[in-house]
Amino acid sequence: MSIVVVGSVAFDSVTTPSGSVEGVLAGAATYFALAASFFAPVRVVGVVGDDFTSEHEEVFRKRGVDTCGIERAKGKTFRWGGHYLDNLNEAKTDYTELNVFENFQPQIPPAYRDSEFLFLANIHPRLQAQVAREMNGVRMTGGDTMNYWINSTPKELAETLRMVNVLLINDTEAKMIAGVANLPRAAQKVLAMGPQALVIKHGEYGATIFFREGAFGMGRHPFRAPALPMEEVKDPTGAGDSFAGGFMGYIASQEQLNREVLKRALFYGGVMGSFAVERFGTERLQSLTREEIEARFQIFRELTHLE
Amino acid sequence: MSIVVVGSVAFDSVTTPSGSVEGVLAGAATYFALAASFFAPVRVVGVVGDDFTSEHEEVFRKRGVDTCGIERAKGKTFRWGGHYLDNLNEAKTDYTELNVFENFQPQIPPAYRDSEFLFLANIHPRLQAQVAREMNGVRMTGGDTMNYWINSTPKELAETLRMVNVLLINDTEAKMIAGVANLPRAAQKVLAMGPQALVIKHGEYGATIFFREGAFGMGRHPFRAPALPMEEVKDPTGAGDSFAGGFMGYIASQEQLNREVLKRALFYGGVMGSFAVERFGTERLQSLTREEIEARFQIFRELTHLE
Repeated sequence: MSIVVVGSVAFDSVTTPSGSVEGVLAGAATYFALAASFFAPVRVVGVVGDDFTSEHEEVFRKRGVDTCGIERAKGKTFRWGGHYLDNLNEAKTDYTELNVFENFQPQIPPAYRDSEFLFLANIHPRLQAQVAREMNGVRMTGGDTMNYWINSTPKELAETLRMVNVLLINDTEAKMIAGVANLPRAAQKVLAMGPQALVIKHGEYGATIFFREGAFGMGRHPFRAPALPMEEVKDPTGAGDSFAGGFMGYIASQEQLNREVLKRALFYGGVMGSFAVERFGTERLQSLTREEIEARFQIFRELTHLE
Repeated sequence: MSIVVVGSVAFDSVTTPSGSVEGVLAGAATYFALAASFFAPVRVVGVVGDDFTSEHEEVFRKRGVDTCGIERAKGKTFRWGGHYLDNLNEAKTDYTELNVFENFQPQIPPAYRDSEFLFLANIHPRLQAQVAREMNGVRMTGGDTMNYWINSTPKELAETLRMVNVLLINDTEAKMIAGVANLPRAAQKVLAMGPQALVIKHGEYGATIFFREGAFGMGRHPFRAPALPMEEVKDPTGAGDSFAGGFMGYIASQEQLNREVLKRALFYGGVMGSFAVERFGTERLQSLTREEIEARFQIFRELTHLE
């Protein structure tokens, strides 16, 4: 079953303790699409500028990702520059050039309308809500957001949350939305705002999924997936979007939506995030094979599995 | 099989967002002993002052803990006062009165010498090394330390690490000892200093055990146990010592020492830590039953278990 992802396609310049790269293909929708493409057909809605070449296009094409929803606008593609110091969990932004992304108006191609899954990557919540309304026949809508929208557009974010089935955010974002410091209590408060399930990503410690009472017939018990302790993290950029791609992609590959599927999806999310950070930009996602994914899934499973 | 624990017995005054208590029985050795007592016989080596009454003694006695190694000295028992703000992971110290603990010289009673397990709670590494030397016939020595000793007595700590089989510390301490920001790399560096296994406690995210190559015949693959997302943490004090008590206690209750035992021990550590924080001081550990421990172990297991 197909997934539509709406979000940024960008060129990133990133410096980490392991090195640096200039203007590599990146953006939330890109990471998501490449990661999800190992599990299900993916369709992208985004915008790029004249500097987006056939070489960039080829990265999507090789993974079978449908790019007919990527609008070509006059001007430059969204560019982000940032660096990470020793604390790889925290990106420091050097510059943000929105360029053609500034006036992004997501257009869903007619051919995308039969998609059964929708992922709203981190963009203005007003745009997220617009797309969710247009695609309201989907089986599941996933979404992401960030501190900027939580602080500056809380009302519009609240509106979007009512249309999202599964929200994927990190600890800090969950506590900010809820205004509560305790994680499970923050989770309950976010769930009361709309989503049936809430995935909280803990970076190197894995992720937890919390369920609204009765959602998916799964009760309220949370579930946790570990993350693999990684000896080398070259570039943490895109880990969260790759996580979301693995999570939504795995769900879209399954007939049923039940607790066991969501649990495995959480593991696959962690697996895809762990690959993404092994190389700069999307390099590792581009070279990846399904066999490598399955092998790492087994390692993740063994990591916490009691006989 | 019996465990000797050497460490502090103290009276704590603690304020958290949930309330406050004055002068409650606490200290690393106390938390450890109570937690471990649900699994194996425990013997304590420590020092208290005249203010340690038969009521306090009774807390140990009720759990069958041997206190003949607790020296009664003239003066007051070690007192610690601290508070936690919204971030329950970080204790702010209001005062530390070492009192009789200042000149603590651990004396191992002859009756303790047949013990098969030893836990060196967080005290001066010179004292830890002394005890480890005296008790060098044990099957396994566990140990803890803290930032203060890592910074001020690195040489003495290094000496102690050569005598510890399993070190139990948190992320920050591991990175400080190793001088390395990446967790699995820091772990390998700490393991190279002596311990065969290193348990790194991640607070609300659980714990990871790393093995030295060949240690316990278990290869180098780490293992992770989750922690239960807790809606109410009344008092985080003693969580780490209770974790260590559950971990060492479970190991001491088993005939064999193999990977599966160590994995389960890590889960039991998390279980005991999760109980400790539910009430102020050692209150919850005092009221606990083995049935409650088993029930929570199953919840921890379910939390990450894939079919």
